[in-house]
Amino acid sequence: MELGTIRTAEGTSAAVRRDDRWMPLGAPDLSALLARADWRTTAEAALASAAPGAGVAGHDAELALPLPAPRKVVCCGLNYADHILEMGRDLPEHPTLFAKFADTLTGPTDEVAVPPAAQAALDWEAELAVVVGAELRGATEEEARAGIAGYTLANDLSVRDWQKRTLQWFQGKAWDATTPVGPVLVTADAIDPEDGIEIVCEVNGVRRQTGSTKTIVFSAAALVAYISQFTVLRPGDVILTGTPGGVGMGMQPPLYLADGDTVVVQAAGLGRLENTIRFTH
Amino acid sequence: MELGTIRTAEGTSAAVRRDDRWMPLGAPDLSALLARADWRTTAEAALASAAPGAGVAGHDAELALPLPAPRKVVCCGLNYADHILEMGRDLPEHPTLFAKFADTLTGPTDEVAVPPAAQAALDWEAELAVVVGAELRGATEEEARAGIAGYTLANDLSVRDWQKRTLQWFQGKAWDATTPVGPVLVTADAIDPEDGIEIVCEVNGVRRQTGSTKTIVFSAAALVAYISQFTVLRPGDVILTGTPGGVGMGMQPPLYLADGDTVVVQAAGLGRLENTIRFTH
Repeated sequence: MELGTIRTAEGTSAAVRRDDRWMPLGAPDLSALLARADWRTTAEAALASAAPGAGVAGHDAELALPLPAPRKVVCCGLNYADHILEMGRDLPEHPTLFAKFADTLTGPTDEVAVPPAAQAALDWEAELAVVVGAELRGATEEEARAGIAGYTLANDLSVRDWQKRTLQWFQGKAWDATTPVGPVLVTADAIDPEDGIEIVCEVNGVRRQTGSTKTIVFSAAALVAYISQFTVLRPGDVILTGTPGGVGMGMQPPLYLADGDTVVVQAAGLGRLENTIRFTH
Repeated sequence: MELGTIRTAEGTSAAVRRDDRWMPLGAPDLSALLARADWRTTAEAALASAAPGAGVAGHDAELALPLPAPRKVVCCGLNYADHILEMGRDLPEHPTLFAKFADTLTGPTDEVAVPPAAQAALDWEAELAVVVGAELRGATEEEARAGIAGYTLANDLSVRDWQKRTLQWFQGKAWDATTPVGPVLVTADAIDPEDGIEIVCEVNGVRRQTGSTKTIVFSAAALVAYISQFTVLRPGDVILTGTPGGVGMGMQPPLYLADGDTVVVQAAGLGRLENTIRFTH
């Protein structure tokens, strides 16, 4: 299934896609839907019972941030084996983790407003994101896999100068409304990153990043299991799985985003994020 | 004023202290109270109008985690000048920041349950905590100072081996229910850390840390202003201001907490946290 948070005249609504139409699911967004124990059967029933032509005609531009209110957003740093090895490093024994806030996220086609202090070294990071679908504490990898609701895309836009001000990356990663997420949540029965999903990032139409999720060191299930050793994960929580090589910081000379640039993150089966950078005063 | 979240037969209640009694304030806890624009006048009115003997007799053991639901908990790393200088380092230009979750917090007298994976290198960190009292975006230091609701204490118990597994400290700092906070919120009109509050940590009755908030590099207002440059802060959000020298990791050999150990964090005017470490299976 593909689930989304659609924009309607009355606000937003959680919905399930059938062909090019969206069936509303009686919740304002996917954060609210996933908080309900019956989210999966609710969506399946709406899909099965919808009359032809029912629901709302959908275009990607009408998709809002699917998960506006995760309690936890946890991100993994270096995780693509090919990128780590090409940098001459050893594969890590443990995932490098940091946190974002729900406020850090923004929608799949939203403009990203960048205040002056964050304009000098803004960089892209295309990522696969995992959406938790069950409450998980101390989960094994098998339990974690069963507890994944599905997958979506994220662009972990990073303010590199602030990220490097101190040893802790957090302050370069937690600027409000700078991490596009979406466009949809594809449930785990329909897609498996361990089969290899090619994650692509393009800036102004030029391909900058390509990475297969097959080369991820810590799989989605491994990350979820690991994090659940120290903190409970709940339905709607979001885990970003790291970015492949090709970020602007790694170029010679480094290339950063400018006012008006468009960044696309896409993957077959997961859709695309397309966000324009807007420098503010 | 001293505000707290008291335990009652019906659950918890936000309350204001008058002598040794607590006046309930019609909210389940201080997170809920601070979310109301009139939190200050509500508390002042309850104080002013309470009849003699009104309210609930209070003992510290009846105080729960004052702020159970902050949307944001942001922590500052190295921040005590005397400790930084004694370590031979330069004073930092920018604060080192990382995040915790609401789930990471626990009450001022709660036992801290420590699962096996976190038992090898559990360390204490006594800290002053700042509680935000207004919505702040891009605040100046003066605006930040005016937007501080008040102060409380925190023990940023740290799982050092996990903290050092990777460059990012987060996974050693975000174990559920391991950061005692409280016992009360002392409003900013009643106490000023820039005057110098002595923060003390004792483990099993032995003093391990002492630091004056006068020697903090980034003041409470400076930290709040800095963080508000990249993310909005809201009433009830909590900022931990860093710990003075004397942590277990810095001893020769390092000393870590054991099952049954009692850690006290205290400061004149702010009360005390007293938490027993309980290793679980």
